[in-house]
Amino acid sequence: MLDIALVGCGGSMPVPNRYLTSMMAAFNGSMMLIDCGEGTQVSLKMLKWGFKAIDIVAFTHYHGDHIIGFPGLLLTMGNSGRTAPLNVLGPPGLKNVVNGLRVICPELPFELNLIEISTDTPEHIRIGEFSISTLPVEHTLPCLAYKIEALRTKKFNREKAESLKIPMKFWNRLQKGEEIEFEDNVFTPDMVLGESRKGLQVCYCTDSRPINELVDFIKDSELFICEGMYGDDSNLDKALQNKHMLFSEAAMLAKEGTVDELWLTHYSPALACPEDYLEDARKIFSNTVTGQDRMIKKLMFSK
Amino acid sequence: MLDIALVGCGGSMPVPNRYLTSMMAAFNGSMMLIDCGEGTQVSLKMLKWGFKAIDIVAFTHYHGDHIIGFPGLLLTMGNSGRTAPLNVLGPPGLKNVVNGLRVICPELPFELNLIEISTDTPEHIRIGEFSISTLPVEHTLPCLAYKIEALRTKKFNREKAESLKIPMKFWNRLQKGEEIEFEDNVFTPDMVLGESRKGLQVCYCTDSRPINELVDFIKDSELFICEGMYGDDSNLDKALQNKHMLFSEAAMLAKEGTVDELWLTHYSPALACPEDYLEDARKIFSNTVTGQDRMIKKLMFSK
Repeated sequence: MLDIALVGCGGSMPVPNRYLTSMMAAFNGSMMLIDCGEGTQVSLKMLKWGFKAIDIVAFTHYHGDHIIGFPGLLLTMGNSGRTAPLNVLGPPGLKNVVNGLRVICPELPFELNLIEISTDTPEHIRIGEFSISTLPVEHTLPCLAYKIEALRTKKFNREKAESLKIPMKFWNRLQKGEEIEFEDNVFTPDMVLGESRKGLQVCYCTDSRPINELVDFIKDSELFICEGMYGDDSNLDKALQNKHMLFSEAAMLAKEGTVDELWLTHYSPALACPEDYLEDARKIFSNTVTGQDRMIKKLMFSK
Repeated sequence: MLDIALVGCGGSMPVPNRYLTSMMAAFNGSMMLIDCGEGTQVSLKMLKWGFKAIDIVAFTHYHGDHIIGFPGLLLTMGNSGRTAPLNVLGPPGLKNVVNGLRVICPELPFELNLIEISTDTPEHIRIGEFSISTLPVEHTLPCLAYKIEALRTKKFNREKAESLKIPMKFWNRLQKGEEIEFEDNVFTPDMVLGESRKGLQVCYCTDSRPINELVDFIKDSELFICEGMYGDDSNLDKALQNKHMLFSEAAMLAKEGTVDELWLTHYSPALACPEDYLEDARKIFSNTVTGQDRMIKKLMFSK
C-alpha cells in the first residue's frame, strides 16, 4: 500500500494556519517528499511520520515557496540520526541552488546525491522503492510535474510452483525476480509468476498552466494532486499571467485524465476559503477535494 | 516611545506552536529585526506590524535557526512594495551567507546594504533612528549580542528661547540640532537646549554563555531579552557543552546588570513548559518573565 500526505496546501508565501504546498509518499518503509517551502518541516512534525525514512526529496522548481525550507529540513534530518545518503531531484540548476542554500548547513552527517532532471523531455528514474516519472510543465521558471508509481510484483502461481516441486523456501526469492540454482535444477521467476498487476499511481503538479501533455501523464492515476491557485474563474487573466491554474482548469485535467480523485492545493494567500469554489469544480469533475494541510490517503492494491 | 516584540521564543529548530527566537523594535516609524529563522515572517504577519518599515535586519550568528527565514522575508518585503535599501548587519561572513541564500531570490526590488560587524571587539553603529551597540559573546560560532538605544533629544528651554527672542518657527529645527541664521543673528542649539536626557535601551542576547562582559553591556537597560535554553539547573553540562544558558544564569546577568525586566527566550524544543522553572529564576531576579511568541512591550520616555 502507498500512503500519501498533502503536507501543506498554500502557495506563493507562508501565511498563518496554512503550510506551503508539499507532498509526502510512503511505500515499503521508504519516504519521498516533493517540495519543501518555509515551514514544511514543522508540518511534517505535526504529521508524525518521522524524518529518518525520507530517502528522496524532489523539487518541482526553485521558487522560494517550494525550496526555502530545505536547509532546515537537512539539519533536522541530521539531528534525527540519518547517515544514509539522501537523493535529491530537481530541474537543472539543482547543484547551484543546493550548494547556495547549504551555506548555513555545510556539514551534515549524510551525503546528498544530487540528480538533475531535464525540463526539455519527460524522464523516468527508479530510486529504491519508487518509480518516478517527470513531465516538463509550463510555469514562469522551468518546472516539473511528478508521477510516483508503487509497482506491484506479478502474482505468484502456487499450484505451478507445487507441480514443479520447487521448495517453498525459494518462493519468496523467485517472486522478487531471483533465479535459483538448486540440486542441478534452475528455477526462474517466469516459471511461477503470472501476469503483471496494476500498481498504484499518484501525480503531483504545481506550478503550471494546464498543458495538454498533463492529460496523458496523469492518465488513470489513483490520485492527482494539482495546483488550484485561484478558485474563481474571473481570475483567468492572473492565472495566464502568473502561469497558474484555476480550480476549473485542474478539474478539467482530472476529468480528461480519468483519474480516480483530484486534490486541489497551492491556494493563493488571498483565497481564504477554497471550499467556496468547490461545487463549481465538482460540476466538471465530481471527485474533486479541496486539499487541507496534512490530509492523508492510504491507497491499497486491488485484490 | 520604543515598541518591542518578541517575534518567537523557540531555539534550535522550528516546532509546532512556537516560532524561532527573533525580536522586532519599532521607533519613530522605522523597524529593526534581530534574527530571522524559518517561520519568522509568519509570526511577523500575525504580529501585524507590517513589513515595509523594516529598515534593518541584524543577525546574532549564522546557525540555521537564526537565519533560514531570511530569503523568504526578502521575497515578502519585495512583495510588500519596498524599494528603499535594507541594512543587513551580522558577524563577518555576512556577504558569503547572504549571497548563498539569495540563490533563490537573486532579484529584489531593493538593494541590500551588507554591514559586517567585528566579533573581536565591541562596536557601535548609528543607522537611521537606531543607535546600535554590539558585544562579541561566547557561542559555538562567532556571535553578537545587540543593544538598541532610542536616543532622546535634549530638553528645549522655552523660557530661554523667549528671552533671546528666537522666533517660534525655528524652535523645532534648533531642538533637532540645526544652527539658524536669521536677520544678522545666529541661533545655535546650545542656546536653548538643556541637559542630555536618558533614552531607552533594550538588549538582546542569544546564543551565548553568560560572560562577564554582558553585565556592563546590559547595564540599567529597560528590557533584557536573553536566551534560556534550559530551565532546569541540572542541564548545566548541556549548557556548557552547547554554549547556551540556564534560566538561572540569565536571571543572574539581569540582577548584576540591574536591568528593569528580563524576558527569557530561545527555549530548547524539549522544554515544553518554561513556566515550570520561572519561580526559581524569580528568586534570583524578581522581574523575570518567560517569553512567549509575539509578546510586546511599549517603552516610554520618562517625564
